[in-house]
Amino acid sequence: MIKAWAARTPKGKLEKFDFDPGPLKGDEVEIAVEHCGICHSDLSVIDNEWGVSSYPAVPGHEVIGQVVALGTETRGLRVGQRVGLGWTAGSCLHCHECLSGDQHLCAESVATIVGHAGGFANRVRAQWPWVIHLPEGLDPREAGPLLCGGVTVFSPLQTYGIKPTDKVGIVGIGGLGHLAVKFAAAWGCEVTAFTSSASKEAEARGFGAHRVVNSKDPAAIAAIAGSLDLVIVTVNVPLDWKALLATLRPKGRLHFVGAVLEPVPIEAFALISGQRSVSGSPTGSPVTIASMLEFAARHKILPQTEHFPIAQVNEALDHLRAGKARYRVILDM
Amino acid sequence: MIKAWAARTPKGKLEKFDFDPGPLKGDEVEIAVEHCGICHSDLSVIDNEWGVSSYPAVPGHEVIGQVVALGTETRGLRVGQRVGLGWTAGSCLHCHECLSGDQHLCAESVATIVGHAGGFANRVRAQWPWVIHLPEGLDPREAGPLLCGGVTVFSPLQTYGIKPTDKVGIVGIGGLGHLAVKFAAAWGCEVTAFTSSASKEAEARGFGAHRVVNSKDPAAIAAIAGSLDLVIVTVNVPLDWKALLATLRPKGRLHFVGAVLEPVPIEAFALISGQRSVSGSPTGSPVTIASMLEFAARHKILPQTEHFPIAQVNEALDHLRAGKARYRVILDM
Repeated sequence: MIKAWAARTPKGKLEKFDFDPGPLKGDEVEIAVEHCGICHSDLSVIDNEWGVSSYPAVPGHEVIGQVVALGTETRGLRVGQRVGLGWTAGSCLHCHECLSGDQHLCAESVATIVGHAGGFANRVRAQWPWVIHLPEGLDPREAGPLLCGGVTVFSPLQTYGIKPTDKVGIVGIGGLGHLAVKFAAAWGCEVTAFTSSASKEAEARGFGAHRVVNSKDPAAIAAIAGSLDLVIVTVNVPLDWKALLATLRPKGRLHFVGAVLEPVPIEAFALISGQRSVSGSPTGSPVTIASMLEFAARHKILPQTEHFPIAQVNEALDHLRAGKARYRVILDM
Repeated sequence: MIKAWAARTPKGKLEKFDFDPGPLKGDEVEIAVEHCGICHSDLSVIDNEWGVSSYPAVPGHEVIGQVVALGTETRGLRVGQRVGLGWTAGSCLHCHECLSGDQHLCAESVATIVGHAGGFANRVRAQWPWVIHLPEGLDPREAGPLLCGGVTVFSPLQTYGIKPTDKVGIVGIGGLGHLAVKFAAAWGCEVTAFTSSASKEAEARGFGAHRVVNSKDPAAIAAIAGSLDLVIVTVNVPLDWKALLATLRPKGRLHFVGAVLEPVPIEAFALISGQRSVSGSPTGSPVTIASMLEFAARHKILPQTEHFPIAQVNEALDHLRAGKARYRVILDM
């Protein structure tokens, strides 16, 4: 039996939920969960905000744990190994994207918490390529949020060939944004943090930001027009996109990792005149996750966290819902 | 005296306009114009659609001619050489963009027809880096439209690393679009033409399209969802952007070269889930123009044109305004 915590209905409180996962499949790994971060998308799935949830829903997709069982077809892992598991728990492994190393873009991929039991549990299972070795030097107690939030903000730096000489803006200093500031600073870039919260300014500088701009102040945004190579948007609320687009240099990129639900109005002329791009990305492939963890270990990048025991999971979720998390919440099993 | 044709007022008919250009500047080249294409942006400047025109406005920025005079500081050109001149007639040459080879993104660049006398004239002047050698094997009578329309649609193929194995969509089969189909086909790609004009289907195939899709038919667009690596939008009218975005494969790009004036509503989630981009670009740098001309010469790519003598410039402009051009109009001096 797996001992988990699940929402039985949309927006429901999490309750204890024990279930028999059946025999381990050939390509599956079973992980004994030690710690699991909470991500905003756990709330989205609990609340069925995207209309794809199934119940009972076991959240949790920033897992750190130890391998306790290996299916017959798994490769490259051993029992007792410390590993992480993120947003994706499986993919088809044979489509164009999977065979190209873009497994996170597989149309048949399985999200760890959608139609699959996640990491708010004593055990979680996943397909072996998605179970990633945790390098020495990353504290297992703190590393969980790297598996989803970390790779989500790391991926654009790698994917788009960002250079240490580039200037990067991070919009929103929260769970994702504070990690984005840390990664971009360690990448060697000049980092501008955009936040509407004056209380976060000093902390943003502490994470590595060289400059902090009020994201609700049009004059402050206009003052840095034409200066940034990449702006990563980690928020999910509408902002002055035209002004943010204008902060880009020629050939610059405005990149969304926060799923802003309202359509973003983009003026084609603003893209054309400066040869600019607007783009988005989800988490990352297994190789991107692994290289992110290696980079994080070398540069000592970990989230700033608050811990709750799993028995207080509902208090922890409420803390996140209230916008009080500074900056990522981790559940200890 | 330069003998030109100019609009004296916004939307005015073009009239003969002789003017003394003064002494040739050190960095300038004077070209005896032989042929000059007409581009939609000539109409935009005549009409002051962008609010930047100055009058008398001499249009014309798809120039083919011969060098007749060289300023003292010019390099790499000789009198008698056959050359082309496109959208840009000068740039600062010392900013980051100019020194990086992205002179077309220079903030101080001078457009050939904005505050500068263009090619509807017996002579036109431009700064020497923007005066591009016309390779042997490109008919000077037909090559003019390559200098603006051609490089505009060629540039994204080169800039974004499009490979011959990629699948490319071209939206709008007009002056730009028909050249885009030719370039993408010669690039080795599978080419899908999107047009709302049934009469253009056979011609689009003749230009090299492997498939033609009705851009006003949601079912036809939905049938090719997730299949294209790059879609180049050459129209300047609103379309079903959500449906066109959905034609992209993971990592695909929707790219604007037509200045759609209404904001394009983009759902961040559609970008994030497939790691897609939306972007735009103007014409191209001198090196991009030169490599486009060399590629066009090797692949025998020329626009399909209609010719008018310069004395009938107003009839030629009306023909273009009426949407009757098939597919690019050239004025013969």
